[in-house]
Amino acid sequence: MKGIILFGHGARNPEYTAPFKRIRATVEALQPDVPVEVGFLELTQPPLEATIECLVSRGVNEIKIVPIFFAPGRHVLKDLPELIGNAMDRFPGVEFEVAACVGEVDLVIDAMAAHAIAA
Amino acid sequence: MKGIILFGHGARNPEYTAPFKRIRATVEALQPDVPVEVGFLELTQPPLEATIECLVSRGVNEIKIVPIFFAPGRHVLKDLPELIGNAMDRFPGVEFEVAACVGEVDLVIDAMAAHAIAA
Repeated sequence: MKGIILFGHGARNPEYTAPFKRIRATVEALQPDVPVEVGFLELTQPPLEATIECLVSRGVNEIKIVPIFFAPGRHVLKDLPELIGNAMDRFPGVEFEVAACVGEVDLVIDAMAAHAIAA
Repeated sequence: MKGIILFGHGARNPEYTAPFKRIRATVEALQPDVPVEVGFLELTQPPLEATIECLVSRGVNEIKIVPIFFAPGRHVLKDLPELIGNAMDRFPGVEFEVAACVGEVDLVIDAMAAHAIAA
């Protein structure tokens, strides 16, 4: 079974999770059968490790991680692969895939540009 | 004359500016007569203050600042108003407007959700 994790940096501000919840709700509306969870690198709960564990406990064995980052920096290029490496050791039967950062995607770029013009 | 500033946090990774350049190019393609520049809070050049100064020197007197942030945290709610307050003191003839963070916008949320499904 497939599952999706929206991976964010984390922040002190509790409002920070709002866009993640909205993305999750939109994905769930479009694909009701695919579990979608959020997980963070630091500061915000739950950590990515806990989110992976949660999905695996629900029978997910193909996890696509979508970095909700504007660009792939150290957190996406170094911290995320380390976290995934640990998860692969822990859950050898689970396949992991990392999608492009949202800020690398044409559709997202176009949407941000439209907002800059319309706002 | 109107101008737009794409305001980002900044990061050590030089690749970090890529999405900002792509958003700017898209806005310029849609509105060739409106100057669009990027400016950062920290770590990445140029700082927001320098970008404001640059636009004002080109005759811009209405500046819309678009926070390229997922959610309005301390940087958008506290640091940005302080920077704008300083700029208002320095350039009393210039009007400033702050748009919603890109992560608060339906179109951007939908685009990120579409990427999460398609990636």
